[in-house]
Amino acid sequence: MRAIAPLLAVLSLATAVRAAEPLASWNDGRAKKAVIAFVTKVTKEGGPDFVPVNERIAAVDNDGTLWSEQPTYTQVAFAFDRIRHLAAKRPEWKQTQPFKAVLEGDMKAVLAGTARDRVELIAASHAGMTPEEFETIVKEWLATAKHPRFSRPYTDLVFQPMLELLAYLRANDFKVFIVSGGGVEFMRPWSERVYGIPPERIVGSLIKNKYEIRDGRAELIRLPEVEFIDDKAGKPEGIQRVIGRRPIAAFGNSDGDYEMLRWTLSGSGPRFGLIVHHTDAEREWAYDRHSPVGRLDKALDEAPERGWVVVDMKKDWKVVYPFQLPAP
Amino acid sequence: MRAIAPLLAVLSLATAVRAAEPLASWNDGRAKKAVIAFVTKVTKEGGPDFVPVNERIAAVDNDGTLWSEQPTYTQVAFAFDRIRHLAAKRPEWKQTQPFKAVLEGDMKAVLAGTARDRVELIAASHAGMTPEEFETIVKEWLATAKHPRFSRPYTDLVFQPMLELLAYLRANDFKVFIVSGGGVEFMRPWSERVYGIPPERIVGSLIKNKYEIRDGRAELIRLPEVEFIDDKAGKPEGIQRVIGRRPIAAFGNSDGDYEMLRWTLSGSGPRFGLIVHHTDAEREWAYDRHSPVGRLDKALDEAPERGWVVVDMKKDWKVVYPFQLPAP
Repeated sequence: MRAIAPLLAVLSLATAVRAAEPLASWNDGRAKKAVIAFVTKVTKEGGPDFVPVNERIAAVDNDGTLWSEQPTYTQVAFAFDRIRHLAAKRPEWKQTQPFKAVLEGDMKAVLAGTARDRVELIAASHAGMTPEEFETIVKEWLATAKHPRFSRPYTDLVFQPMLELLAYLRANDFKVFIVSGGGVEFMRPWSERVYGIPPERIVGSLIKNKYEIRDGRAELIRLPEVEFIDDKAGKPEGIQRVIGRRPIAAFGNSDGDYEMLRWTLSGSGPRFGLIVHHTDAEREWAYDRHSPVGRLDKALDEAPERGWVVVDMKKDWKVVYPFQLPAP
Repeated sequence: MRAIAPLLAVLSLATAVRAAEPLASWNDGRAKKAVIAFVTKVTKEGGPDFVPVNERIAAVDNDGTLWSEQPTYTQVAFAFDRIRHLAAKRPEWKQTQPFKAVLEGDMKAVLAGTARDRVELIAASHAGMTPEEFETIVKEWLATAKHPRFSRPYTDLVFQPMLELLAYLRANDFKVFIVSGGGVEFMRPWSERVYGIPPERIVGSLIKNKYEIRDGRAELIRLPEVEFIDDKAGKPEGIQRVIGRRPIAAFGNSDGDYEMLRWTLSGSGPRFGLIVHHTDAEREWAYDRHSPVGRLDKALDEAPERGWVVVDMKKDWKVVYPFQLPAP
């Protein structure tokens, strides 16, 4: 019975998800219909577009696609807090960019930096410890830090409709991977709890780890060096490296996801691409072409000709965050 | 019923594996007892050594641990065949090492090279195509190439006792990953069929991929550049990058697995390390300290003090290959 119990639990969960209306927080528009049509056709055994279970790979961006990325990426907020915490022991940071800007609270100067600047900042503020020690630091920060606008833990700012999308994909035997420009070790400590996505299903940016013996024990030590940036063309490269198969569906929200969507949809057979367009200043934020965070320009222009579904957050989503759901 | 059918299939399979004696092709010695004792204690709910399902990560080397690596690594045999095939269009290879040695059949010169030499050779002979095209080439080669000693497909030379070990771990809800010095894209085309391990559960050496647009389609192109060598200290680094958690069990056969075993066993809580010692010249090969392929020296010396189980292939395994099994 011991071996059967977990399977029955999975069975109950799958049944519960399927019994409920899929994508319940999505309005009945073009986006919802397109998601359901795609999943229905690739799971229809014997149908012309059937995709075997082991090839049902979905790649989903994190910042701006699964949770809010304003006023800046959550990992940047974490890095800033961490740099302030470490600054007492690093007096030279007061004179060195980009640390100086962080310590002076000059967000504009920090945001004006390149993606590599941001990752360098993150790397420098995240290094010199084992991955396990870093995991503890991330968990402690998430347990106490509050989002400046909503005064809630950052992990409350996940998108309810996207949680339902993840559940719908899983109920249809998709393997769902996060593919994010963010640091992979920043997401792993909480992705299973918040999204149901385990650590080994996250593709992200990397800093270098170095194997060494400390007090007779073998450890990895995080170095302040960027190894890989999982953004733009890095996304397909990161997917191939970690997942080893071209996804059949990709979900993003910015030009950083452009190459991932193009590569996904360049494969043969049925393919699906979706972009979350942030159009809701009241419930979340409204931004696209001129945003320093999550800029969406080229991908928005080309979405129609490439057949990518564009979600209009304001029109397509009944609620944005789980805490906005009506009480049951 | 559609959603339930695959779950029932999993249930039947799990039941079948559990109904049969686990590790049936292992003699009843210290190694088999140690494997069963470890798996039993980490799966005993409420016991002092219980490990939750999501932390049951096992890392298993491939060459020499899951299949034979003599007279040379299978991927090297593939690369040599591929270089011979491509040589007509690369006349300069006749004058350039290490290609010259390959074309002249001078195995000694090739084997005298470093690990990086070998991977460079592999990279140069494997590049200039998409991962999907490379997959096709690997599959075609495996369908026709024969191992020089056994005159059988290379994938027949997997170790029956290790297939049973993989099944036993899976039946106990372990997530099993291959962690190999070999190229990840060389293993992915057949690992699911042969080992039941899907492409995303393989950590291995990498060559660079470059995103580009070809005839209006987005593709990755394999470049003749080594990106990462997943050997020695590279193994823990590769595991952290892809899996994101320290395994609780590691299985290897050479000094290339030393750092992976040390790192695995340096974690807190119950841990397990195992080394396959090739002691059977009659049924397979006998080699260790002086072998140019799969050298086992330091790891063999330190195994007793570190508590690593050493499998004596000749004594511990009833059969080596599946084709040696008695007819049912």
